[in-house]
Amino acid sequence: MTSPELELTHCIEFSSAHRLHDPALTDAENAKLYGPCNNLNGHGHTYRLEVTVRGCVPRSGMIIDLNVLRVIMHEEVFDHVDHKHLDKDVAFLAGRISTAENLALAFWERLAPPIEKRGGGQLVRVRVYEGSDSFVDCFGV
Amino acid sequence: MTSPELELTHCIEFSSAHRLHDPALTDAENAKLYGPCNNLNGHGHTYRLEVTVRGCVPRSGMIIDLNVLRVIMHEEVFDHVDHKHLDKDVAFLAGRISTAENLALAFWERLAPPIEKRGGGQLVRVRVYEGSDSFVDCFGV
Amino acid sequence: MTSPELELTHCIEFSSAHRLHDPALTDAENAKLYGPCNNLNGHGHTYRLEVTVRGCVPRSGMIIDLNVLRVIMHEEVFDHVDHKHLDKDVAFLAGRISTAENLALAFWERLAPPIEKRGGGQLVRVRVYEGSDSFVDCFGV
Amino acid sequence: MTSPELELTHCIEFSSAHRLHDPALTDAENAKLYGPCNNLNGHGHTYRLEVTVRGCVPRSGMIIDLNVLRVIMHEEVFDHVDHKHLDKDVAFLAGRISTAENLALAFWERLAPPIEKRGGGQLVRVRVYEGSDSFVDCFGV
Amino acid sequence: MTSPELELTHCIEFSSAHRLHDPALTDAENAKLYGPCNNLNGHGHTYRLEVTVRGCVPRSGMIIDLNVLRVIMHEEVFDHVDHKHLDKDVAFLAGRISTAENLALAFWERLAPPIEKRGGGQLVRVRVYEGSDSFVDCFGV
Amino acid sequence: MTSPELELTHCIEFSSAHRLHDPALTDAENAKLYGPCNNLNGHGHTYRLEVTVRGCVPRSGMIIDLNVLRVIMHEEVFDHVDHKHLDKDVAFLAGRISTAENLALAFWERLAPPIEKRGGGQLVRVRVYEGSDSFVDCFGV
Repeated sequence: MTSPELELTHCIEFSSAHRLHDPALTDAENAKLYGPCNNLNGHGHTYRLEVTVRGCVPRSGMIIDLNVLRVIMHEEVFDHVDHKHLDKDVAFLAGRISTAENLALAFWERLAPPIEKRGGGQLVRVRVYEGSDSFVDCFGV
Repeated sequence: MTSPELELTHCIEFSSAHRLHDPALTDAENAKLYGPCNNLNGHGHTYRLEVTVRGCVPRSGMIIDLNVLRVIMHEEVFDHVDHKHLDKDVAFLAGRISTAENLALAFWERLAPPIEKRGGGQLVRVRVYEGSDSFVDCFGV
Repeated sequence: MTSPELELTHCIEFSSAHRLHDPALTDAENAKLYGPCNNLNGHGHTYRLEVTVRGCVPRSGMIIDLNVLRVIMHEEVFDHVDHKHLDKDVAFLAGRISTAENLALAFWERLAPPIEKRGGGQLVRVRVYEGSDSFVDCFGV
Repeated sequence: MTSPELELTHCIEFSSAHRLHDPALTDAENAKLYGPCNNLNGHGHTYRLEVTVRGCVPRSGMIIDLNVLRVIMHEEVFDHVDHKHLDKDVAFLAGRISTAENLALAFWERLAPPIEKRGGGQLVRVRVYEGSDSFVDCFGV
Repeated sequence: MTSPELELTHCIEFSSAHRLHDPALTDAENAKLYGPCNNLNGHGHTYRLEVTVRGCVPRSGMIIDLNVLRVIMHEEVFDHVDHKHLDKDVAFLAGRISTAENLALAFWERLAPPIEKRGGGQLVRVRVYEGSDSFVDCFGV
Repeated sequence: MTSPELELTHCIEFSSAHRLHDPALTDAENAKLYGPCNNLNGHGHTYRLEVTVRGCVPRSGMIIDLNVLRVIMHEEVFDHVDHKHLDKDVAFLAGRISTAENLALAFWERLAPPIEKRGGGQLVRVRVYEGSDSFVDCFGV
């Protein structure tokens, strides 16, 4: 009999500055498209990152060691973005406009391989909150 | 290569009175079916509405302009229900018993067309919280 | 040596309808003073009530038995206001305009005597939340 | 025409002690596998249980009577685990290592039959929070 | 008989970038004093501002019109800081190191006069949250 | 001119087991006094500890270095109580019945000296949450 698959989700917060600005557009186009998020000197958020891993439950009772998941989330995301400027300080975001959508996609790319390799589960969702009223879900790339 | 689909969720609160009462039933039947929610003079909630839109991520990095989504949520729902009596003041709820389930269905009907037309994404979930311990999800009508 | 005084706070939620309306004013004056809160058919909230009791810590380690406090909060407030219309169903609110301020005052009057008599502590704060963004504190009457 | 299916979710909290320990492993192996969760004298959590029921919306407007769902959640889970030691006091957890994953599986087994029988809906998700930053979802057994 | 004094609190969120840096110190001293908050390109937060007003409860039942308080909070604080860089875009913060402590002091100075003049109550507390785990309270200047 | 005093609060969570039991009472007396909290095998909570420090704001803009406060909270409290049994594993709680009141008193005793010595501020409040609906405040010993 195969064990059913369950999902484990872990959440962390990070604090970053960013600015929505597309270098291919004029200043007026950027201002129109991104509104206050295009503010020249940037703004910031306390982001919340939720990562969900899916897998069978082995004898240990754990889909993935929560501590391993936490370490991966810190090494792959937190250590690069916390107390940073997303557009100026984060190599893996270079060339991407730092919307929550693009953050979720970029975080997925970094998180999926080590979760599968070191944790043995399968990444199935990356959720990024910008403040308490809005969030983005990525289910794959 | 097609971009993956992501989901964006936005949440707002509104404050309304309502009463669960089916005019086809006797008072005793209503009292039994709906319990304290059938209180003659009504009661109320701080509702929370979460709306989820699905779509590909274009060059702008945004599935849908959050401000457009916010305006649609206000025009189609908030402006009709906030600081209102759901059963007496809201034309689009006429003839529906105002359970969270029926609210979610009615909000879906109002939100889906403008989100597709003005926002370009696809409505995939309407969640309605009644208080902090209970909520209803609608995935289509 | 006297033991220091500590404070214990307990919180409950209730769901009520109400309407802000002063019978001594004209309809136009009410509409101007209370805005959407004056809506003819009322509106509602999920209220949160926080009650704080102060006292020394006896050998039991408990300022007041949390279960006694919970029973008092239910008997004196919750059972009268939950799933009710504050202006039509609640005897002890008769003649009061049901702002959060007046609710806090009325709850204080009901809660202070039994907390002192049955619980042995001293009521020092009644906090009433209307939604998640606004609350009123009463420290005595 | 068939009515669409919606989902209703209700949440409760409970407070329990537990210890992660596999009797088939040595003490050193347990300490390595479970880390601080293997502490000899146990530790504890304020757990949050979210139960989701799926069904069509009948004339009453309710997928399932929320009060029936609440009673089932209390009878099948809360009354057995609240203010208990999960490994020593809970018969239906005997022989299971009390990870959140295994709790979710065990709760599913207990909740699914009465929800279908007494409530008429279908259990589709059991979510168990350990603290505010981690949770497990079970979608079936 | 004088009415007792109550307190009304209202909360709003804003999203800003900032950097802790004292121009009178060397780069090494700044790095040591402010740690990651001194990151050259800045970082950001979703701040939460709670403002508390004290006053007697007049016949209207309202210490201060919540809408007036909300307008003052927006005009004096939100409109200047939301989606801005606190150190580069906010005139009234010029020359201050933008710690939560200094924000609370600066907000107090701006909020106290209009609350007294237009609202008729007395400002008694300004609370500034940086993320969900830390906040500062100012009780006067 | 003296700078006004402000307060900084920081919060952390910890997960512990405990049992309310007074060895000077009979089993029946304990069961009556503490109810389900007297369960023989114990129960547990996700506790939340909020610590408030008061002080003037120096040139740095910080009442106390938040990192220093965080280290003190971990060294003096978290490292001793997280993933522990409060009654069996924590030396500084020996002989105390582990109510939230007594925890707050014991934490105060440990936190006040290092906060004054290493941080330079004055401890003015220790708040201990047991779950999300109840908390205790200690203002001194």
